Amino acid sequence: MIRIALAGPRGKMGKEALELIQNTTDFELVGLLDSRETDALQNYSVFTSIDELFLQTKPDVFVDLTTPELAMKHTMTALHYGVRPVVGTTGFTEQDLKTLEKECKEKTLGCIIAPNFSIGAILMMKFAEQAAKYMGDVEIIEMHHNQKLDAPSGTALKTAELIGRHRPSHKQGHEDEQELLTGARGADIDGIKLHSVRLPGLVAHQQVLFGGEGQLLTLRHDSFTRGSFMPGVALSIREVLKRDTCIYGLENLIE
Amino acid sequence: MIRIALAGPRGKMGKEALELIQNTTDFELVGLLDSRETDALQNYSVFTSIDELFLQTKPDVFVDLTTPELAMKHTMTALHYGVRPVVGTTGFTEQDLKTLEKECKEKTLGCIIAPNFSIGAILMMKFAEQAAKYMGDVEIIEMHHNQKLDAPSGTALKTAELIGRHRPSHKQGHEDEQELLTGARGADIDGIKLHSVRLPGLVAHQQVLFGGEGQLLTLRHDSFTRGSFMPGVALSIREVLKRDTCIYGLENLIE
Amino acid sequence: MIRIALAGPRGKMGKEALELIQNTTDFELVGLLDSRETDALQNYSVFTSIDELFLQTKPDVFVDLTTPELAMKHTMTALHYGVRPVVGTTGFTEQDLKTLEKECKEKTLGCIIAPNFSIGAILMMKFAEQAAKYMGDVEIIEMHHNQKLDAPSGTALKTAELIGRHRPSHKQGHEDEQELLTGARGADIDGIKLHSVRLPGLVAHQQVLFGGEGQLLTLRHDSFTRGSFMPGVALSIREVLKRDTCIYGLENLIE
Amino acid sequence: MIRIALAGPRGKMGKEALELIQNTTDFELVGLLDSRETDALQNYSVFTSIDELFLQTKPDVFVDLTTPELAMKHTMTALHYGVRPVVGTTGFTEQDLKTLEKECKEKTLGCIIAPNFSIGAILMMKFAEQAAKYMGDVEIIEMHHNQKLDAPSGTALKTAELIGRHRPSHKQGHEDEQELLTGARGADIDGIKLHSVRLPGLVAHQQVLFGGEGQLLTLRHDSFTRGSFMPGVALSIREVLKRDTCIYGLENLIE
Repeated sequence: MIRIALAGPRGKMGKEALELIQNTTDFELVGLLDSRETDALQNYSVFTSIDELFLQTKPDVFVDLTTPELAMKHTMTALHYGVRPVVGTTGFTEQDLKTLEKECKEKTLGCIIAPNFSIGAILMMKFAEQAAKYMGDVEIIEMHHNQKLDAPSGTALKTAELIGRHRPSHKQGHEDEQELLTGARGADIDGIKLHSVRLPGLVAHQQVLFGGEGQLLTLRHDSFTRGSFMPGVALSIREVLKRDTCIYGLENLIE
Repeated sequence: MIRIALAGPRGKMGKEALELIQNTTDFELVGLLDSRETDALQNYSVFTSIDELFLQTKPDVFVDLTTPELAMKHTMTALHYGVRPVVGTTGFTEQDLKTLEKECKEKTLGCIIAPNFSIGAILMMKFAEQAAKYMGDVEIIEMHHNQKLDAPSGTALKTAELIGRHRPSHKQGHEDEQELLTGARGADIDGIKLHSVRLPGLVAHQQVLFGGEGQLLTLRHDSFTRGSFMPGVALSIREVLKRDTCIYGLENLIE
Repeated sequence: MIRIALAGPRGKMGKEALELIQNTTDFELVGLLDSRETDALQNYSVFTSIDELFLQTKPDVFVDLTTPELAMKHTMTALHYGVRPVVGTTGFTEQDLKTLEKECKEKTLGCIIAPNFSIGAILMMKFAEQAAKYMGDVEIIEMHHNQKLDAPSGTALKTAELIGRHRPSHKQGHEDEQELLTGARGADIDGIKLHSVRLPGLVAHQQVLFGGEGQLLTLRHDSFTRGSFMPGVALSIREVLKRDTCIYGLENLIE
Repeated sequence: MIRIALAGPRGKMGKEALELIQNTTDFELVGLLDSRETDALQNYSVFTSIDELFLQTKPDVFVDLTTPELAMKHTMTALHYGVRPVVGTTGFTEQDLKTLEKECKEKTLGCIIAPNFSIGAILMMKFAEQAAKYMGDVEIIEMHHNQKLDAPSGTALKTAELIGRHRPSHKQGHEDEQELLTGARGADIDGIKLHSVRLPGLVAHQQVLFGGEGQLLTLRHDSFTRGSFMPGVALSIREVLKRDTCIYGLENLIE
């Protein structure tokens, strides 16, 4: 049995993770960290002090699904108590990551920080990076619900960055191409074109299209519910026990 | 048997049409109109004078796949000789169409002018127009080979125009939406977003996406070869015989 | 304001409809019909007798989202009290429909019975029927979550039936085609091939593919949440007030 | 400059390869091997004897696009003369491959045998194999023109085999699933479902769908023309010069 403590159990991700831990046969929930005690969690062992949580429950793994503001302090505290962290927030600075790497090394403890727990999305990005070595003409179409504020999405930008590691920077399309309507050809990152679709009904979807003479290779990921993150959380919990370094990004767990 | 004369037999469309006419059991090729005589067509009855073509071969239908410059003159000449024209070029002015309508009415002759002979593309546009009555949030993604000069495509613009007949003009997406990279959200026509993808390998493809609460309706047309135009040519040849007015656009032949 | 009574407010569809009625400015919820009173609905005017519901609240429209067993009796009672029914269940027999048609005629009241309230799905089916007049080679791919018991889906069967009204029955594919593995070519309805995909993560999706020389026309509907039914419920509520006959199927409300 | 001899220059693949070699700046065509001399190739140095070809032109690489019957003999002859073979046919037996491996080792010569030169298709299969480690529920939809005789396609079978290396054999779908129409759920390979679509207009397309809780990962390859094989031929020509073993399958050239 893997003994697990969870921080942030009332958030959207936290609720799913709570369910995951309880429904997985070799996972045991030993305690929750929350900013306050609530009726909703009255059947659980809830702590408002992270030190008390670790001292009393002695977990193997600490799953942190709180906020970027809290995550760094939580993670350092977990390592201090010899507990392996699995962290699902963005916002770590370069300096934070260096500090964590050093701490993990000294304590020979694993730590996994994953801005994105969706295994399908990670695979799409990884495959896009690989394909870019062999097919250098590529466009990205990401599609989200119309309540999303930013375009393009973070995943699309990250995908373009990964592709850019192997694809020589070049302008795509016909050299005399004309945009009759501004924006038709999308946003441009070193010649890679990005298109953002926003429609009610959509959830979170992305296609990466690689064109070559006479052929098209399409990598597509559809995320329908937040439940899509849970297999990545479970994988991280199992893997962090086998590791003794700080790993940033689920892609580094996947071969 | 339907007796058919064909103009422009050496062009890309013309070659396909020549094959179509010869391979259709109730079609009979009675003569070709070309700018000059060539060895390639030595087995056919080729005319360089349109008057001679009509006087000697007396066709039922005249299929014109030449150029916008020639099409108006050819069409009027066909009507003068009592031959029904099927014309596959763009470039007719409003005035041209009025003149043809009047001429068709006087002579009680059918005439079909089709800027696009692809039945699949016509159906996609027609369905897009219908769907817009019930689902008002829509984006268009058109995808073509990277040798195409213009973006967006003519079909995409035409589709947006048809949708606009029923969709009240409005801005789509979140009202505080931010384009982090210029062009990400595509071109804008009354709030309809258009995205143009250009990649080697692609031929001619278009998707129209209608989003509504909890759902997405997608209309997609893929054109792989110029052969896709031939069923539309065949339909027009049969239909022009039953008509006695000038019809602009294949969509008006389709219920 | 349209005065609306709702039956079945605790079901999956009923909950969504309750929210819809309350969030629509010109809809007024006047009463609920339920098999029993519950705390969950304590803020509403709940009736367990359909007669009392109609006598006391005098609604314009009665929305029935209960079960096939109750629907016929409810619908007849509504018409008896001069209330227009909008019914979202399957299971009406030919005889039931005839009885309802007669009753509507006598009372000059509209009644709408919709086995499927998804406007997007209805449009897909309607377009498939239209396209079959012009492109006779077609295959259907329906995709659902892996908890679905039956294959193919009801929507796929209904779509094949609609296509069959216009497509001459014929065997598709090569005449000497060989199925190396049984089932590869899918199920067969008069030569139309149906393929059922079942995977975790999927919700409810269908593609209808029409192939012609050099081209492909694809009609696709994705249903992500039950919320996709609500625009169809709203449309039916507005339309039933303008009608004076019994209408079976949302497709008959759509031009 | 890489000196290249080509066998089978009048076949469909051969014609494309001839064009490729002539249009690539660092490729030099030194001779053709054909069963007879023809006017069509009068501007080339054509040999009907493979020994004469190698003795007189001394190529670096021998590209063989003939038939399975000839390929083994040609390949052994090339190795005998110290020429590196790039072979694009199927039909080599296990024994053939062992013989070639031994010969390559003795002569320290590279040899590449590729039943499929399409880099996009190879990437799709490779990615499918990788994804199967993390997402075990998968279905394959392959789509081809309606003149194809066999279903499923060779590529689909090969993909299923590669997936099967990592995916534990299990039945997918609901355990009480019912096929109302035989074949709806497709063909079955260890629980992986395969669906074959055949329609006029289609060329050669395949989708591999991986479903997981709340998400879908789709890998798709579209092959529009035979030109899609040429980048794989070019890659093989360059790579065979750097190798000193016999490599079967382009996937082994790709990282």
